[in-house]
Amino acid sequence: MLKKIETHEARADFLKTLEVRGNMDTGIYAQATRQIVDAVRQEGDAALFRYTKQWDSESLTPANVKVSREETKAAFERLPESLQQAITLAAARIERFHAQQKQKSWMDLKETGEILGQRVTPLEKVGVYVPGGKAAYPSSVLMNVIPAKVAGVKQIVMVTPASKAGTLQDEVLAAAYVAGVDEVYKIGGAQAIAALAFGTETIPKVDKIVGPGNIYVALAKREVFGYVSIDSIAGPSEILIIADESANPTYVAADFLSQAEHDELASAVLITTSKNLAQEVQKEVMRFFEELPRKEILLESLKNYCAIILVEDLEEACQLSNAIAPEHLELAVNAPFEVLTKITNAGAIFLGHYTPEPVGDYMAGPNHVLPTNGTARFFSPLSVDDFIKKSSILSFTKEALMPLADSIIAFAESERLFAHALSVKVRKEGVN
Amino acid sequence: MLKKIETHEARADFLKTLEVRGNMDTGIYAQATRQIVDAVRQEGDAALFRYTKQWDSESLTPANVKVSREETKAAFERLPESLQQAITLAAARIERFHAQQKQKSWMDLKETGEILGQRVTPLEKVGVYVPGGKAAYPSSVLMNVIPAKVAGVKQIVMVTPASKAGTLQDEVLAAAYVAGVDEVYKIGGAQAIAALAFGTETIPKVDKIVGPGNIYVALAKREVFGYVSIDSIAGPSEILIIADESANPTYVAADFLSQAEHDELASAVLITTSKNLAQEVQKEVMRFFEELPRKEILLESLKNYCAIILVEDLEEACQLSNAIAPEHLELAVNAPFEVLTKITNAGAIFLGHYTPEPVGDYMAGPNHVLPTNGTARFFSPLSVDDFIKKSSILSFTKEALMPLADSIIAFAESERLFAHALSVKVRKEGVN
Repeated sequence: MLKKIETHEARADFLKTLEVRGNMDTGIYAQATRQIVDAVRQEGDAALFRYTKQWDSESLTPANVKVSREETKAAFERLPESLQQAITLAAARIERFHAQQKQKSWMDLKETGEILGQRVTPLEKVGVYVPGGKAAYPSSVLMNVIPAKVAGVKQIVMVTPASKAGTLQDEVLAAAYVAGVDEVYKIGGAQAIAALAFGTETIPKVDKIVGPGNIYVALAKREVFGYVSIDSIAGPSEILIIADESANPTYVAADFLSQAEHDELASAVLITTSKNLAQEVQKEVMRFFEELPRKEILLESLKNYCAIILVEDLEEACQLSNAIAPEHLELAVNAPFEVLTKITNAGAIFLGHYTPEPVGDYMAGPNHVLPTNGTARFFSPLSVDDFIKKSSILSFTKEALMPLADSIIAFAESERLFAHALSVKVRKEGVN
Repeated sequence: MLKKIETHEARADFLKTLEVRGNMDTGIYAQATRQIVDAVRQEGDAALFRYTKQWDSESLTPANVKVSREETKAAFERLPESLQQAITLAAARIERFHAQQKQKSWMDLKETGEILGQRVTPLEKVGVYVPGGKAAYPSSVLMNVIPAKVAGVKQIVMVTPASKAGTLQDEVLAAAYVAGVDEVYKIGGAQAIAALAFGTETIPKVDKIVGPGNIYVALAKREVFGYVSIDSIAGPSEILIIADESANPTYVAADFLSQAEHDELASAVLITTSKNLAQEVQKEVMRFFEELPRKEILLESLKNYCAIILVEDLEEACQLSNAIAPEHLELAVNAPFEVLTKITNAGAIFLGHYTPEPVGDYMAGPNHVLPTNGTARFFSPLSVDDFIKKSSILSFTKEALMPLADSIIAFAESERLFAHALSVKVRKEGVN
């Protein structure tokens, strides 16, 4: 069930399989999504509630779609104490980590009177999408909301589809309460994305929409991009574990499976220099598989997108890892910080034998919204950066401007932009 | 020709016109673009040179498509000395400003052995698109390339379409030489974007593509997004000038026209508290219009997308400006830094009477690639940030992990992710 790869041909085939696993013909969904987005854009609440009644719950109306702060508090208080503590501790740690990402405005001043700078301002309003049903993860609520809070966003609006009965899960509401969401609305799907992008009578228009969702949600985000900003579209999830002979096969096998259980497209790859470890991990994976629930999911991902790859040395392991650019990378090796210096592409990197990937999913502090499917070559984890924008600041006096005047004029005239040159000429000539 | 707006109705109508001016039915171009991208993706050089011969120059082949560093140097040396100096000075100032944007990796260490951090690494390879013909601006080459250089990008590949004779403009090559582009290829259009995104026998595959282009280039960038990163798609350009009675009408009129001359969709808006200034600026605009070339362009943009709006006070001016979220904002007022504190949305802000917008286009240092068409609500100027990515670093010892173990297990089990819980349990139980 779990491949062991020892030849370069088999390796190339497997990498190809990984690369295309996220590809999906979205054509059949695209038109339906566009219709929904257009309808909500033009009709507002009328279309939003037509779709909401059709797909989520008959009971929802503009009057009862908003969840009060008291309700989210009550949901938190209904949770078992262990989970209350876990959510509260996670929120505090996530906040601490993200606070260190805050960027400052800066200025560069010269005696001539020239001032150049960069100003950082938070986005004003942000929408957070939270999927419904089984995919409703309270940890994702924390990870999407807290960086926006830290950035200084004034209004955070959460949307999430309700059950047929018109209810939401306590865990999700509790996380919204702890994270400090300002408003929660029981809407979902492409219609919720359109409502956030264009605003309706009930739902405020926002500047950016973040959070994962199904295919309709993903396509709707693409559709409204430009009217608002969006986060990157999440692809299937993956872990890559680089391990040497110092690694514990039981730990490695458990971490491997923790990725594989996510969904049928999830990928777990072990790259190791040790034949012995490869064998032991394979055994442990099989042993745990018998014990674990979610067997249908595990079976599919293990068969198709998981593998153990044998390499000559850690140098080769790093090269291969950089080519894959994994979302999660574990360095289960004797000297992890040395190996770290060879890593260029990875979303989050877990060092040593006591840093299992789930500590990052829930509790460590860094964001668990990470670039998937090879995009760690150029994308970053979700962060405070996603909820701010920058403006350039320029201020010249006459004394500061004049030494540059002739160069600006020469440049503008070479580009045949004569009014550009004119705006400097009139100041040079001192027309008053 | 140039509207003066004094009522709220007229103001609302004009804002609506501005908002939709970038909308364009791209349907007719989309299919053609997709075909070109697919062909280059599948056939590589064969398709790339088929299209290049068809649309650019018959003379281009894999053997002569690359421009050598000597050729770019020769192009620089052929320029008039004033322009050589202007390009060199601009490059130095742009580098100085952008160097201040560099972000550092950081770590947060605790005595328990817990280390959390954020690592910054440059993208490895970047493609810069430069349009051909009249839209080939050497200043844009500097603005797109230098931030990538400062970020530490190893390989910067520039593409730009050649003339029928197979040649490029000296100005563009000279700017590429000064900015330190590694490789220049004479290709353009959707086929050049596809070549950069997927690689061909001749063109290297990159991690990110930046730079403006025509509708085919813009659609091709959208098409390859996800395989590579892209910058935001540039919309029509705009300036907003907030002026009080201290402003010089001649200066304001020249700055106003410097935006209007860009293209037929360009917008210039003056918001002023002074009826007298409004009148004087209108006169000066008409006077300069008679003197300037590019009259067809000016006529269209002045008529459709330019206006003078009268307001009660600077507070109202700022509110209106924040709603428009202009690409360029001039504060031609007596106390510009006081007004600045009221501004939340703008790409670049020019303070006082001696900071005309063209100083920012060419020479000041901040980037002239700015969020257009209202997207300054959520987007930022092009910067060093666009050429780096971040990775989260997590490292726990057993001592650091154990106090979090039960919370991670509680969280994972509440989300029904049992292998996630398992990965912590095996470490807690100390299986070895």
